[in-house]
Amino acid sequence: MQTNSSQVGTTMSNGPVCPVPASTYAHVLMAHGGGGRLTQQLLEKVFYPAFKNPLLESRHDGAVFTVGNAKLAMTTDSYVIHPLFFPGGDIGSLAVNGTVNDLAMCGARPLYLSAGFILEEGLPMETLQRIVLSMRQAAEQAGVQIITGDTKVVNKGKGDGVFINTAGVGIIEHQQAIGPSEVLPGDVVLISGDIGRHGMAIMAAREGLQFETTLQTDCAPLAQLVLKLIAAGIRVHCLRDLTRGGLASALNEIAEGAQCQIEVQETAIGVPEEVRGACEMLGMDPLYVANEGRFAAFVAPEDAAKALEIMRQDEAGTGASIIGQVLRAGKPLVTLASRIGTHRIIDRISGEQLPRIC
Amino acid sequence: MQTNSSQVGTTMSNGPVCPVPASTYAHVLMAHGGGGRLTQQLLEKVFYPAFKNPLLESRHDGAVFTVGNAKLAMTTDSYVIHPLFFPGGDIGSLAVNGTVNDLAMCGARPLYLSAGFILEEGLPMETLQRIVLSMRQAAEQAGVQIITGDTKVVNKGKGDGVFINTAGVGIIEHQQAIGPSEVLPGDVVLISGDIGRHGMAIMAAREGLQFETTLQTDCAPLAQLVLKLIAAGIRVHCLRDLTRGGLASALNEIAEGAQCQIEVQETAIGVPEEVRGACEMLGMDPLYVANEGRFAAFVAPEDAAKALEIMRQDEAGTGASIIGQVLRAGKPLVTLASRIGTHRIIDRISGEQLPRIC
Repeated sequence: MQTNSSQVGTTMSNGPVCPVPASTYAHVLMAHGGGGRLTQQLLEKVFYPAFKNPLLESRHDGAVFTVGNAKLAMTTDSYVIHPLFFPGGDIGSLAVNGTVNDLAMCGARPLYLSAGFILEEGLPMETLQRIVLSMRQAAEQAGVQIITGDTKVVNKGKGDGVFINTAGVGIIEHQQAIGPSEVLPGDVVLISGDIGRHGMAIMAAREGLQFETTLQTDCAPLAQLVLKLIAAGIRVHCLRDLTRGGLASALNEIAEGAQCQIEVQETAIGVPEEVRGACEMLGMDPLYVANEGRFAAFVAPEDAAKALEIMRQDEAGTGASIIGQVLRAGKPLVTLASRIGTHRIIDRISGEQLPRIC
Repeated sequence: MQTNSSQVGTTMSNGPVCPVPASTYAHVLMAHGGGGRLTQQLLEKVFYPAFKNPLLESRHDGAVFTVGNAKLAMTTDSYVIHPLFFPGGDIGSLAVNGTVNDLAMCGARPLYLSAGFILEEGLPMETLQRIVLSMRQAAEQAGVQIITGDTKVVNKGKGDGVFINTAGVGIIEHQQAIGPSEVLPGDVVLISGDIGRHGMAIMAAREGLQFETTLQTDCAPLAQLVLKLIAAGIRVHCLRDLTRGGLASALNEIAEGAQCQIEVQETAIGVPEEVRGACEMLGMDPLYVANEGRFAAFVAPEDAAKALEIMRQDEAGTGASIIGQVLRAGKPLVTLASRIGTHRIIDRISGEQLPRIC
């Protein structure tokens, strides 16, 4: 599998070319789980046609539905990150925050989580206990309860320590519609902080890698900040956390969902020096690196300055910035205006830059 | 690991003795996922203390909560069954029905499912497509929609083809409280059909086994039958599907949750001849074999005959029978009155009779 080796501000690239559609792959590749073009094709070719229903097809981070007088959001993620423990977090805190954040991206206040564990025979009990305690702490911090669960054990060599699935339910307590279909030309794009910390912290924690950093994951709950924006009356049209596939994939997903063209400014996107250095060494592009505590917000242009102010005042958004705008409706396209004045297309990644990053 | 070799009506046993509490195991064993005593100990020692909250501690098949004016149930299960395809079903139909049934056991009408896939690199795409289509068919049959999902890929040798997690949300549209804490002395215990088909169909489908049967899984959705019972005014005090760990484990879980003593009649428990034969050959006890389309209902004694009639009229309950009664409140105990007049204690299994059965 070809990997994307473009660098923010250093290389011109419109992403690697994907030679054949996913349906022609006879087997599942690592890249089908990478959050890029092959993941998208797997959804388009296998999952969406089979499970065809309007809620699924909203292509949002979660599904929104009404029961009685309550408007609810539901979402799920499985976590297969390697290694299980990494600077600043572990699979447990990730499994809580990742799902809490997907609910937040629907504009929901997270309420309840389920937790499904797939344990590999031989896993040290102490490892499991550490992970479970980390989940509890993350749940407390995010204000959610883990109310139902399941545990399965697979034979040694048929799993990898621990896989965790969490599904979440949240309540939407406002009238604002949030999703790709709400995005309008002129909308301003903000991100809640610098990018690349989670992915590079994981890479540094993997065995056999030749670099050391002090980078920690940015993994954090985002719901409180999102709810502040909404409570302040910011017209939030779309939200997306910058996880698997990074900022580039999130922007592409929204451009496709909204059928619009987005331009972002390279100089406005914060990339920590250590992330930049590690990416250069590993031949990676920070735009495609996963974050677990960052999100993009598409807001009405008149509200952008106020949104930025609110974000910067919140612990989860101190590094927020306005990075670009929706230029127009039309064939989905994301472009980056570089610091030297060039424009390059930021495409979906087709390969697998960072396997098992979440 | 010692396995339980008692047979319905052939062997006297109160279950194997578990020498040490789960907390003293330094590593996860297959038996921790078996649905028996070690699973219970893992919950008691690791999960319940960490996630401590009243909803989790109801120890029901799912959690029940209220949002707005809606009373909802939420549940989750991961499916790691081996092999992926087996007579009468596959991991896909199982992943839908298993979670639908857990919602039904809360007295809920299943509404929505999430689906999280963990794929092993190299999985044939055709296999995934078969599974996904099977999920769709099962969802249509059960009247639920799969509204949100997630796909992860793990490296070859770090998974086993496909693991699926489903979480479900259902609505409770009646006033009846259902759960172990509602069980009363005198309650009559019914089961919805004969036992052991699912487990023995899986065993027969596993490579290298020396027996052949025409047995098919009993995997089926149970919500419609449950809702019929409730709609008919049957005072249903507790429901439990007879999955991992079989009828014996379900009865023990309820005896513990309700702090009561239950007696069941061996002659009233249907065991298909082929199940009995296969169990004898493999040294297994049908009471501990997993089913995926059977449940136990604890109902008020005056309603038992009517409940039986309703169950037998439904496709999912044609083989229903009254199998016993709650004798009294007290130290949890499940006993079996055998056809020869003896009484034996039906304990939790501590070993792992059938790994990866669901």
